[in-house]
Amino acid sequence: MEIFEAIKGRRSCRDFLPDPIPEETIEKILEAAIWAPSPLNSQPWSFYVITNKEIKDKIFNETVRCKEWAQEVSGWKWLGGYDPGFLKQAPVMIAVVANPKGTGVDMFQEEGNMGYLQACAAAIQNMHLAIHALGLGSVWFTFFDKQPMREILGVGKELVPLAIVCLGKIAKEPAPMPRKGLDKKVTYLK
Amino acid sequence: MEIFEAIKGRRSCRDFLPDPIPEETIEKILEAAIWAPSPLNSQPWSFYVITNKEIKDKIFNETVRCKEWAQEVSGWKWLGGYDPGFLKQAPVMIAVVANPKGTGVDMFQEEGNMGYLQACAAAIQNMHLAIHALGLGSVWFTFFDKQPMREILGVGKELVPLAIVCLGKIAKEPAPMPRKGLDKKVTYLK
Repeated sequence: MEIFEAIKGRRSCRDFLPDPIPEETIEKILEAAIWAPSPLNSQPWSFYVITNKEIKDKIFNETVRCKEWAQEVSGWKWLGGYDPGFLKQAPVMIAVVANPKGTGVDMFQEEGNMGYLQACAAAIQNMHLAIHALGLGSVWFTFFDKQPMREILGVGKELVPLAIVCLGKIAKEPAPMPRKGLDKKVTYLK
Repeated sequence: MEIFEAIKGRRSCRDFLPDPIPEETIEKILEAAIWAPSPLNSQPWSFYVITNKEIKDKIFNETVRCKEWAQEVSGWKWLGGYDPGFLKQAPVMIAVVANPKGTGVDMFQEEGNMGYLQACAAAIQNMHLAIHALGLGSVWFTFFDKQPMREILGVGKELVPLAIVCLGKIAKEPAPMPRKGLDKKVTYLK
């Protein structure tokens, strides 16, 4: 798939078919991830490919817990209607775990290190583009607290579970979300 | 350009020709940026397209200041040989400024909001892929302190200058950086 078509055509999908995804497809997606750039080529990412039902259920339960708690503190009514059921439905989840030590010179800078986060997010975006190009759907999922997610995945406190990429065959084609125009977002300093 | 080819073929370029880049090319790159996903479709990004020599010089000077300071605190000898001259050489820089309020439910979560950072980094990665597909080179630059960069760009304290995408025609083709294999980075939870 052509790159601009992939970038503009990708949608966030929350409705998956249960069909399993072949391991070689998963590998193509992960291969796309690791070609993201990173500070000092630190490659500060690791990936947990989850197809285990029990682990998926734990992630679902963690999100339900967060949802209840977030509803209380936010007062956002729409959260009541938010259904994380796609976490059970997606045949594969890929959790992306970041290593804050894998960062650049920003580790010495005033407002702390963000390079490792940027690198991991670039890897995640590569994955979404790859998934879309392979004819599948995905969503960038972050609605969990980090400590419970560390426990679910079995990773140490020094690491940061950043996001889960849920993916699978698309059950229902998602509608595009509108974007604000460049005139609202761009300043030219000539 | 095919998406997997773009992802694998993109390099970090630090050696540019001075040729100016047409505004319609810049718009294609920015258009790729804004099609990144973001939490609650918050689109927490703004872009500063810099071709002004005086501003480029200020950014260069800020990096020289950071370099001197970082050399002292890090003790990293290689930093002495690090030449940020490409900041003066690149015909265009696009500064990406993030709005931490444009985030998702993570604003209520234990370890703070990172959704806005992930979204902006996805936008930056889209830009790099677009730039590569357009036959140009770019580098993801973060070696500056945020407060001086806010002052250079003229943005408020509530915003975070995340990165500068330096771009232009490639003077010298960069070599690929090696990647650790998937076997070192992936755990299957079946």
